[in-house]
Amino acid sequence: MAASAPASAAGSRPLTVGLVGLGAMGSGMAQSLRRAGYALQVFDARPGVAEAFAQAGGTAAASLQALGAACDVVVSVVVNAAQTDSVLFGDGPHSGCAATMKPGSVFVMCSTVDPGWSVALEKRLQALGLLYIDAPISGGAAKAASGQMTMMTAGRPEAYALAQPLLDAMAAKVYRLGDSAGAGSKVKVINQLLAGVHIAAAAEAMALGLREGVDAAALYEVITHSAGNSWMFENRMAHVLAGDYTPLSAVDIFVKDLGLVLDMARASKFPLPLSSTAHQMFMQASTAGHAREDDSAVIKIFPGITLPKPAPKPAPAAAPHAAPHAAPHAAPHPGKPG
Amino acid sequence: MAASAPASAAGSRPLTVGLVGLGAMGSGMAQSLRRAGYALQVFDARPGVAEAFAQAGGTAAASLQALGAACDVVVSVVVNAAQTDSVLFGDGPHSGCAATMKPGSVFVMCSTVDPGWSVALEKRLQALGLLYIDAPISGGAAKAASGQMTMMTAGRPEAYALAQPLLDAMAAKVYRLGDSAGAGSKVKVINQLLAGVHIAAAAEAMALGLREGVDAAALYEVITHSAGNSWMFENRMAHVLAGDYTPLSAVDIFVKDLGLVLDMARASKFPLPLSSTAHQMFMQASTAGHAREDDSAVIKIFPGITLPKPAPKPAPAAAPHAAPHAAPHAAPHPGKPG
Repeated sequence: MAASAPASAAGSRPLTVGLVGLGAMGSGMAQSLRRAGYALQVFDARPGVAEAFAQAGGTAAASLQALGAACDVVVSVVVNAAQTDSVLFGDGPHSGCAATMKPGSVFVMCSTVDPGWSVALEKRLQALGLLYIDAPISGGAAKAASGQMTMMTAGRPEAYALAQPLLDAMAAKVYRLGDSAGAGSKVKVINQLLAGVHIAAAAEAMALGLREGVDAAALYEVITHSAGNSWMFENRMAHVLAGDYTPLSAVDIFVKDLGLVLDMARASKFPLPLSSTAHQMFMQASTAGHAREDDSAVIKIFPGITLPKPAPKPAPAAAPHAAPHAAPHAAPHPGKPG
Repeated sequence: MAASAPASAAGSRPLTVGLVGLGAMGSGMAQSLRRAGYALQVFDARPGVAEAFAQAGGTAAASLQALGAACDVVVSVVVNAAQTDSVLFGDGPHSGCAATMKPGSVFVMCSTVDPGWSVALEKRLQALGLLYIDAPISGGAAKAASGQMTMMTAGRPEAYALAQPLLDAMAAKVYRLGDSAGAGSKVKVINQLLAGVHIAAAAEAMALGLREGVDAAALYEVITHSAGNSWMFENRMAHVLAGDYTPLSAVDIFVKDLGLVLDMARASKFPLPLSSTAHQMFMQASTAGHAREDDSAVIKIFPGITLPKPAPKPAPAAAPHAAPHAAPHAAPHPGKPG
């Protein structure tokens, strides 16, 4: 796309960047890197996904090993720690990239993981001569695509010396929280504590309003203009009002993420009364059959209420010029919780 | 103050308004009424308070009965249902105003109370020929003083016919939530559910960060720019960072208000897992000796952490022109939770 690729911090040689995991967040981040003019290699475990992305620029790597050999920085945007481990050290059909990455190159880990696991990964890569940035992300797919997302990062200064420009190309805010791995993942996990508790609290409050016969739209209007508001109340209760549980971020994401919160706290024997309660609520929703619905479906655990129904779909159009697609959402949705 | 007092809805006769309870919110609301040009009578159970207020305009009523006899609308801004009952029906040294209020006049109830109690009060006043507006308030002392606060109201149309202009004089937003008492108090109680859970969740998240060695100021910065943010996190955790627990809204307010939340839900046998957990946390803080500290002191229930200390006070000034009062707060505080 761009004529001249950004050079490495060392000076002359252009940087080659690899991005693994072209999901909702990763594809947007890869677009940001492509826009910024980096020589870009992409990989996704799903057949054809990288090739489709590369049609507009960049190279679909033939394998993770090929990608590792070609790149100065590898950005990993997969679902969890297990997938990250597989990206680096897998020995299946997609054997990992750690074996082929050049000494001094950087692995940027963007998943939400146990901070202790991230600390251990930095050590493991260091033993291979590789640098590491602990860099969970936040902001949702739209912000990822526009380069406006947030990164919560920590790592050794040598890693930033090479990777900082491309972090800045992907994110509007790059928080640098420590000089070795761990603090990025800790802050991300604590953000998920609040996000999860706030979604469950929003559901509890809206459910109580429905039980008490309060008009749900009026309650939403008042709360979003009052001290009881949260980012999550405002965002997720719009889904409940619309009766639309299309999974933008699913119930099971918070079964996992509040699980990470509780694991981290258990390791230091620290009590978390609200997080543990909210985790139970998401598990109850998951087991009741709502695992893959939007996380706002945690409201379905409350008995004795009637939730708002989605607006009726338009009847099959008699005339061909009638609008065929009714937008299901009453309010814009910024994407995954962050 | 103003040359012409606003007339009643009926037309010619100027409205006289009474305001009872010149605390942080009530005194600001009385100032708004005075600015709007109403003939104003004020009363406070604390000796001298009404007289001090009236020095800048308005009349200090000699008694609640005198105030009731003189006013078309009485606005009550006291702490709770028991005090409201006393304002209307008390028989002690400050015997209540209900006995002297003229038929067709309006009582505006601004406290946070059990919605069922508010519904019963409307009926009790109706039997005396009096109108009623269920009108809890939100926004804090500064917004009350500037007429920018919020009112969550419900009542019969005849009551609004007389009182709407003075509600508009006191509040930037007057939500009208029902044609009889109850919905105003229900929405206020649900707002307090969220406010209380969010304060406790903010404390839990910040405490975990401290336990994990995360820099508290950096955590505050990231969360307030992320999806984990809430109005309460942003407001109350600034107190924790400053180590300042000066009670702007006290721990015991949420012992009371989450108690109202749970009472309302218990009456309809509705489960509230997060509210009940947060209530326990505030009760734990109260009994541990923090009852009258700022509600953010709920963070003191978490063991094994060291909370930020307040900035050291300036040494006693050698020169008389040194600033004598250091501002204790690191961040602005909008007042009570609303």
